[in-house]
Amino acid sequence: MGVDIYLDNGGTTKVDERVVKAMLPFFTEQYGNASSTHARGYDAQKVLNKSRDTIAKSINALDEEIIFTSGGTESNNFILKGIAFTNKKKGNHIITTKVEHKCIMNTCAWLETQGFIITYLDVNKEGFIDPQQLEEAITNKTILVSIIHGNNETGSINDLEALGAVCKKHNVYFHTDACQSYTKTPLDVKKQHIDLMTINAHKINGPKGVGAAFIRKGINITPLLHGGDQEFKKRAGTENIPGIVGFAKAVDIASEKNVKQMTILRDKLIEGLLTIQGTKLNGPLGERRLCNNVSVSFKAIEGEAITGMLDLKGIAASTGSACSAKTLEPSYVLMAMGLTHEEANGTVRLTISKDTTEKDVTIFLKEIKLVVDKLRAISPFKGDA
Amino acid sequence: MGVDIYLDNGGTTKVDERVVKAMLPFFTEQYGNASSTHARGYDAQKVLNKSRDTIAKSINALDEEIIFTSGGTESNNFILKGIAFTNKKKGNHIITTKVEHKCIMNTCAWLETQGFIITYLDVNKEGFIDPQQLEEAITNKTILVSIIHGNNETGSINDLEALGAVCKKHNVYFHTDACQSYTKTPLDVKKQHIDLMTINAHKINGPKGVGAAFIRKGINITPLLHGGDQEFKKRAGTENIPGIVGFAKAVDIASEKNVKQMTILRDKLIEGLLTIQGTKLNGPLGERRLCNNVSVSFKAIEGEAITGMLDLKGIAASTGSACSAKTLEPSYVLMAMGLTHEEANGTVRLTISKDTTEKDVTIFLKEIKLVVDKLRAISPFKGDA
Repeated sequence: MGVDIYLDNGGTTKVDERVVKAMLPFFTEQYGNASSTHARGYDAQKVLNKSRDTIAKSINALDEEIIFTSGGTESNNFILKGIAFTNKKKGNHIITTKVEHKCIMNTCAWLETQGFIITYLDVNKEGFIDPQQLEEAITNKTILVSIIHGNNETGSINDLEALGAVCKKHNVYFHTDACQSYTKTPLDVKKQHIDLMTINAHKINGPKGVGAAFIRKGINITPLLHGGDQEFKKRAGTENIPGIVGFAKAVDIASEKNVKQMTILRDKLIEGLLTIQGTKLNGPLGERRLCNNVSVSFKAIEGEAITGMLDLKGIAASTGSACSAKTLEPSYVLMAMGLTHEEANGTVRLTISKDTTEKDVTIFLKEIKLVVDKLRAISPFKGDA
Repeated sequence: MGVDIYLDNGGTTKVDERVVKAMLPFFTEQYGNASSTHARGYDAQKVLNKSRDTIAKSINALDEEIIFTSGGTESNNFILKGIAFTNKKKGNHIITTKVEHKCIMNTCAWLETQGFIITYLDVNKEGFIDPQQLEEAITNKTILVSIIHGNNETGSINDLEALGAVCKKHNVYFHTDACQSYTKTPLDVKKQHIDLMTINAHKINGPKGVGAAFIRKGINITPLLHGGDQEFKKRAGTENIPGIVGFAKAVDIASEKNVKQMTILRDKLIEGLLTIQGTKLNGPLGERRLCNNVSVSFKAIEGEAITGMLDLKGIAASTGSACSAKTLEPSYVLMAMGLTHEEANGTVRLTISKDTTEKDVTIFLKEIKLVVDKLRAISPFKGDA
C-alpha cells in the first residue's frame, strides 16, 4: 500500500487550512484595490495595514519597514539591486557567501556585469560564516553584506548578531535572506543589527507568490518595480491582498510549540539515518540547525536514485534546493562545505513541517533503509560503503 | 437603503467564484513546487504547463513565449528594463506615449537616469497614437516602442496592427501594455506584429498577484528577477501555481457574450450621463473604446467630490487610475488629450464588468444625477455648467 509522506517542506509547504479560510473573503467579497479611494479601497487598505503590523511585530520592526513583494526571489533581487544602484557612487563592493540561495548568487553574478565587485565568503565544515573573515573582507568600497540566515540545504543557522555587529562597526548595510529560518528561529532586527531582510510565505504554510522585504527606516533604495505609489513608494503594483492576509495568518499560526515538535522529529530522523552504514550528517547538530532540516550523505549511492525510489513509494524528499533541482551539477553549497563530488551527489535533504508526524518519521526510516540496501546491492561502488 | 454597486473594475475586479474553486486544490492538496523532482512537483509542473497553454492560445502565441510574473507592473518593468539592458549597445532610444500607465512612466523615468533617451508620443483628442508620428520618432538608436493598448483612463483602444507594422518595418521591438484590453478586445500577437506584451489576472476577474509577459521566441531579455531556472530562465522564483491556475480559469471564463453585454451597458451609461447638463465624454465612442470604460468630465464640479458622494451611497467609482488615486495632480492622461485642468479634475471614470447588471446602471444614473445637482447647487462655479 502506498503512503503519502511529504518531506520537502524546504521546497514548499502545504498551505494551512486556516490560512486559506483567512484568504477566501478577499477574493470574492472584500476584493477592493488598496489604492482606491472608496469604501472597498479603504477596507483593503485597513487589512493591508493590519497584516503589515503582524509581520513587522514578528521581527521587531516598524510597520513602515515592511514592504510586501511577490516572494523571496523578488525581495532578494530588490534589496541587492536596489542597494547596489542607490549606492553606486559610494562604492561598488558587495560581500556575500558561497552558500546563498541561487537568487542571491545569480543576482550577484548580474551585478558583476554592471560594474560591481563581489566577494564570496567561505564557510566552515558546518556551513557557518566566520565574523572575523567577514571583517577582513570589508573595504572602504563595501556597500552591502548579504548572508543567509538558515541555510536551505544544510540547515546551518548563521550567528546574525555577531555578523551584524561587524557590519554595524564598519557602517556597511547588513542583509540576511531569512526565508528558511523565519518563524523557526528568533529574528529581531534590532538585536541582530539587521538593516535589510528577506522573508516569504510559502515556506511557512502560507501561499506562494507573496513575501516581504524589511528595509530599515531611513535607508534609501531604488525600487525594482517602478510605478504607482504603493508600499511607501518602494514597490509598485496592486497589492496582493489575499496573499498578504494569508502570509500574516501563517505567521500568526507559527508557534514555539511547532518548533519544539519539529526539533524532536528532526533529531529522531537524524538518529535513525545515522544508524545506516556509510551515512554522514551535513551541517551542525542542535540549536544552530534549522528545526526542520536534515541533510545526509550516503556513501556509494546517488541522492537522485534514493529520492527517485522514495517517490515511487509515495515519499517526497529532495537532494537540495528546489530551485536547483533540475541541474545535474553537484550542489555548490555542499561543495563549499568541503564535501567531495561523491558526497555531494550522495546527499538527500529531508525537510519537515508542523504537519509531519512521528508516524511519518517511523515509516520513512523503515523505507529509506530498504531503498539504501537495494541501491547499494546494485551499486558498483558498494565496497566503499 | 444603501446599494452596493461596483463601477471600479478598471481598478480591480471581484474574483469569479469559479476561479476561486479552480485555485483551491492547489493550496492544500496539490501544493507541490513545480521545480521539485517528485510526484508533487511533476503534478505542479503539469498544471503550470496547462495554464500556460491557455494563456498562449488566447493571444495566438507559443507556450514558451508566456512568462508568468506577479502582475502587470512586474511585466512592464521586466520588459522595458530587460530589453533596455540587453540592447544597450545597439541603442539607447525608447519610444512610448504620454498616456501610459504609471508603471511604464516611472520605469521610463528611471531608465532616463541610466542613460536612456525616451520619446513620449502625443495623442489626439480621442486618445489615439498616430502611426505616422510613431514612424517619424524612430531613429537608428531606437530599440523599443511601448504603447498602451486599451487606455485605463479613457478606454481608447490603439490600432496595434498599424503601429506594429511601423515597428516591424523599422526592425524595432514593439511592446504593448494590454492589461485593460486583454479578453475584452482581440489580441493576436502575429497579426498585430506584437513582440512583447503585458497582461494580468486581477483586471479580468482573476486573482491579484499574477500576470504574464509575452516575449516573442528568439528575443533575448535580461531577467528582472534573477535566480532559479523557472520560466525558461527568464523569471526566477517559485511559481505561484494557485494564482496561475486562477489566471487561466479567468481567461477560460471570459467570453464574447460578456463583452457584448458590457458594451450595451457601457453605451447605456454614456447615453444617460450625456443627458446631464455640462458633461462631456472623454475618449471615443464605439468599437475603438474598451467595452467596460466610461470617462466623463462634469463642468464646475470636482470628480473627487462626485466619487466621494457616490461612495456614501454605496457606489464605487473612481476619478482615474487606482495607482494614481491618492495624488492631487490632474490626470496626465487627460491633460495629454487636451483637457483643461478643470475638465481633468471634473472627471469620473466608470468601469463595469461582466457582473454589472442593467439594474446597477439604472440606479447609478439616478443617483449620479442627484449628486451632480447637489454639488452644482453649492458650487461657486455653477454658472459655468
